Amino acid sequence: MFEFELIKESKECKARLGKIKTTHGEIETPIFMPVGTRATVKTMTPEELKELEAQIILSNTYHLYLKPGMEIIEKAGGLHKFMNWDKPILTDSGGFQVFSLSNNRKISEEGVEFRSHIDGSKKFLSPEISVDIQNTLGSDIMMCFDECAPYPSSYEYILNSMNRTTRWARRCKDHHKNVDNQALFGIIQGGMYKDLREISAKDLVALDFPGYAVGGLSVGEPLELMNEILDFTTDFMPKNKPRYLMGVGSPDYLFEAVERGIDMADCVLPTRIARNGTVITSKGKLVIKNAKYKDDFTPIDDECDCYTCKNYSRAYIRHLFNVDEILALRLATIHNLHFLINLMKKIRESIKNDTFMEFKDDFYNKYGYNKIRREF
Amino acid sequence: MFEFELIKESKECKARLGKIKTTHGEIETPIFMPVGTRATVKTMTPEELKELEAQIILSNTYHLYLKPGMEIIEKAGGLHKFMNWDKPILTDSGGFQVFSLSNNRKISEEGVEFRSHIDGSKKFLSPEISVDIQNTLGSDIMMCFDECAPYPSSYEYILNSMNRTTRWARRCKDHHKNVDNQALFGIIQGGMYKDLREISAKDLVALDFPGYAVGGLSVGEPLELMNEILDFTTDFMPKNKPRYLMGVGSPDYLFEAVERGIDMADCVLPTRIARNGTVITSKGKLVIKNAKYKDDFTPIDDECDCYTCKNYSRAYIRHLFNVDEILALRLATIHNLHFLINLMKKIRESIKNDTFMEFKDDFYNKYGYNKIRREF
Repeated sequence: MFEFELIKESKECKARLGKIKTTHGEIETPIFMPVGTRATVKTMTPEELKELEAQIILSNTYHLYLKPGMEIIEKAGGLHKFMNWDKPILTDSGGFQVFSLSNNRKISEEGVEFRSHIDGSKKFLSPEISVDIQNTLGSDIMMCFDECAPYPSSYEYILNSMNRTTRWARRCKDHHKNVDNQALFGIIQGGMYKDLREISAKDLVALDFPGYAVGGLSVGEPLELMNEILDFTTDFMPKNKPRYLMGVGSPDYLFEAVERGIDMADCVLPTRIARNGTVITSKGKLVIKNAKYKDDFTPIDDECDCYTCKNYSRAYIRHLFNVDEILALRLATIHNLHFLINLMKKIRESIKNDTFMEFKDDFYNKYGYNKIRREF
Repeated sequence: MFEFELIKESKECKARLGKIKTTHGEIETPIFMPVGTRATVKTMTPEELKELEAQIILSNTYHLYLKPGMEIIEKAGGLHKFMNWDKPILTDSGGFQVFSLSNNRKISEEGVEFRSHIDGSKKFLSPEISVDIQNTLGSDIMMCFDECAPYPSSYEYILNSMNRTTRWARRCKDHHKNVDNQALFGIIQGGMYKDLREISAKDLVALDFPGYAVGGLSVGEPLELMNEILDFTTDFMPKNKPRYLMGVGSPDYLFEAVERGIDMADCVLPTRIARNGTVITSKGKLVIKNAKYKDDFTPIDDECDCYTCKNYSRAYIRHLFNVDEILALRLATIHNLHFLINLMKKIRESIKNDTFMEFKDDFYNKYGYNKIRREF
């Protein structure tokens, strides 16, 4: 089962309110999806994610394919049971990771041969294998095997890559077995070239996927360029299907994406920077492990009502980072995930009330507009 | 406020049931105390400790003195507030740690000069300074500054050390300011020499502390020798005051200690071995990170009702260890702490019903008596 209901379109911009129904529950959009690369959102239990009102998490085909391997996930009865998470899961295709292994992979029409980053052993991923893996994982939303091309790339490179991604998308669709319970999304590529984005979008829309992602953005290009390409691309995406911008997770990028009609986004950013001692607050980012917080007994963010901010001071969290305690990573992760999940909740509320643009301006003014660009 | 009520003495052995009342709540004894060295029980939140029914935790004077330092704890309003734990805390004196720095410390009658293990800076601890620190920490139970002598040590070494520990105990008592809210315990030393244990116990009992610890045991001597010395020593300890055996935390040592009249024990063992991938079960220990559990979908212990065993398989936990995920450390820690806390609960029940010796035999038979000795 997979349905998308478009509840409302903003009067101010292309922002939308929607609801996705999956076998494992409903998802209100726009949404930020925490990343659980290796069958766990780093430092968190499933119950804690639910307390934060995480509606869906993302997990990674490449990593799970290597460890623990599909034999174990299959015996466990799928990824949900294996990791004790009964809400929706989205899995990527593994494409992003294997294409990142630039010195250790060989691309052909058939797929990508690569060496495992763990033990150097030879492996192979193709559209069919990626779909098989995701069928075994049992994710509610699967992604087509694609190439997320680097930035900058030549027109010719992107043209070839994009067309192959489209051919691979067709193979993914043809190979996908569990269509009733797992929705396979197509991924629009085309780099920073509008004509290629248009072709990619139209070709994939013709294949009639239940949802579409915009890939190949937020890969190092300026925010203005991302905004321009995204704005252009979403106009070619069906209104009655969910739209997912891959790899975006800082507050400003989320605002810009939603404004341009995006319903879903994911990124390791909030959890990764948390473990490095950086927290997101309504007044900008804050490096909590810095010595200047050693006797600051206020919470990370005095406007925040997360578990961390309700119970712990900056001084205590700074101490925990200073002595390498695991609780530091947990408290910072809880705060950052809460910040983004709660931000998306407020964004949904503002779309409902047609106050999204005002909410965005207010947020930027407080957060610090100049500080906001590519700050992480 | 500090009171100890002796509720019952076993008809079978020297085991006792008791209740300690402190400013931060009551403690049913016999009890195992989880260790939170640096103002956090590693990987755990205070709420999780309460869910495990931890009644009191231990924290370390030496570590907190160095980081974050007393100025910060004082500004925070004490250790309870700093770390968000409102139940009882016991602090050690710092003696164990500074005496362990065998190449970096100088002992005099006044105290111990040592170099910080963190930055090599020169520091000094004395009975008075240790008491001052513990007064600032605001722990419910404080320990006298003592030497925990190594095993083996000569009679002469132990005699001198033990007498100095007694002189230091007197200085601690004289210097202790917050007697209404913080109970200062004396520590009986004397190594493996019964006559010295007797002298130490009698000298300290004469100083009339509200509770007594047995120190200098479980330092590498055979279990049989520990049992003999402990059995001998507890006979010289007042019945109407709590008795604390320091540094003991494997199931067999806890049984042996309780049988000989001990009310309290602490050890880093359950939390430390958990982080190394070893879990305690009713059928003995289990190295959960081993490959043989990779497709074992049973819980760690099928008789256990902890959060970990109710929700996760050995295969999943083994996977988490295998890919260095923090959730692995959390789940193993929860299980091990639950095992010991729950064991002490069952021990209390068995003392109440005068079935302690039967319970001990049953436990040993199942756990594996031969495996049990010094296995960690």
